[in-house]
Amino acid sequence: MCELLGMSANVPTDICFSLTGLVQRGGKTGPHKDGWGIGFYEGKGLRIFHDPEPGVESKIAEFVRKLPIKSEIVISHIRKANRGKVELKNTHPFVREVWGTYWTFAHNGQFKKIKSESLGEFLPVGTTDSEYAFCWLLGKLKKKFPHPPHRDRELFQTVGTYLRELHRKGVSNILLSDSKNLYAFCSTKLSWITRQSPFGKARLVDADLAVDFRKVTTPGDKVTVIATQPLTSDEEWNRFQPGQFQVWRKGRIVFSDR
Amino acid sequence: MCELLGMSANVPTDICFSLTGLVQRGGKTGPHKDGWGIGFYEGKGLRIFHDPEPGVESKIAEFVRKLPIKSEIVISHIRKANRGKVELKNTHPFVREVWGTYWTFAHNGQFKKIKSESLGEFLPVGTTDSEYAFCWLLGKLKKKFPHPPHRDRELFQTVGTYLRELHRKGVSNILLSDSKNLYAFCSTKLSWITRQSPFGKARLVDADLAVDFRKVTTPGDKVTVIATQPLTSDEEWNRFQPGQFQVWRKGRIVFSDR
Repeated sequence: MCELLGMSANVPTDICFSLTGLVQRGGKTGPHKDGWGIGFYEGKGLRIFHDPEPGVESKIAEFVRKLPIKSEIVISHIRKANRGKVELKNTHPFVREVWGTYWTFAHNGQFKKIKSESLGEFLPVGTTDSEYAFCWLLGKLKKKFPHPPHRDRELFQTVGTYLRELHRKGVSNILLSDSKNLYAFCSTKLSWITRQSPFGKARLVDADLAVDFRKVTTPGDKVTVIATQPLTSDEEWNRFQPGQFQVWRKGRIVFSDR
Repeated sequence: MCELLGMSANVPTDICFSLTGLVQRGGKTGPHKDGWGIGFYEGKGLRIFHDPEPGVESKIAEFVRKLPIKSEIVISHIRKANRGKVELKNTHPFVREVWGTYWTFAHNGQFKKIKSESLGEFLPVGTTDSEYAFCWLLGKLKKKFPHPPHRDRELFQTVGTYLRELHRKGVSNILLSDSKNLYAFCSTKLSWITRQSPFGKARLVDADLAVDFRKVTTPGDKVTVIATQPLTSDEEWNRFQPGQFQVWRKGRIVFSDR
């Protein structure tokens, strides 16, 4: 199994605090030592860092953790390999361009027989079932909509339908983004928290680090963090229900199937 | 205009020395201060670093320059913007997946009317004519070969034909890779050097740094470096002729149209 971390914010926000907690689970407080990756959107642009080293030992993780990259959408993943070798090409998040935007995908879980599904125009580079599932999803999406649908709701419902299909094929906790929206599907385990005014303090579960959000935010900020397990001990996280699908934009829920 | 740097090697090799020279041209010894990017292949896997900051000031460039990432193929680019704003999404190298491998592309030059060409299944995310040209090329390639051609020569000749078409549309010095081969097209200016036994010493043109390759290589190593302008002062670089197209694999030329 793996751990996921996502962020959706209405102002460019750095993820240093949450990431410090997550990478500890990459070999120190958790067993997810088979690589690590993160994607930061800046508008339509995307920075992506991948490393097959354990998160807690990775020089790249250490560097990125301290780099105050400000982003409106972040997707990160630390890997405990079950399918596919520990190699750079198998490190999430995966990226493909659809309709002139970069889509990124990170997955926690395992699919049964996903590789017997036929693919459309996207093919996996690595050997994970996760990347295969991502290619399957985007192939179906682009076949159904050669051009992006006019109404967001149509897009969200279609993506939700495909994610539910994946859910039926195995454990599929998924974070997905198209540079505007952050899509989250919970198969077994996923939590989120939305931080907004009045801001408080928080302390990491996995490292001896606390932050006072009042000092690093402005009153209008709205920042949602999504993680496999809550990252802080003194805040109330919301737990997804199994099978639940939600979409965030600028820190706010714009679609929910519940 | 921009500057290009590429490497093709028969053993995983770091590019720290050449990169140190290149990034100086990103705002110090050269005017290419509008961003910087590099892609490292490790097998089929790809690490890519992008930064819209000037190369010489970029924290990411400084970090990557010292990170001894060993790779068989590298493509790097420092940008002096002429078309497209200075933004992350406009930073080379660009990446797309074709036939289950990552293709990367970096371009020095400028095209006339490239955006009136119709595109296939790949669309640009940013606003540069370079990314547009890359999408055009891959769209044509995948339309002609829905599956990769069996013979490498057929692939090389086809890519060469498309690159010559681009050359007719403007200045198009190009580095392109498919994770196995490094394709280089010279429109106006491009040089290369192949380092192999017996190795010697070299000194950078752009920084006070020398290296003794005898100390960092083994006798069987073969490493080709391609750059817009020679990076060292005491080695003999080969100059491409305008219109020349060559392909390297594992440090060795596998296709040349001359």
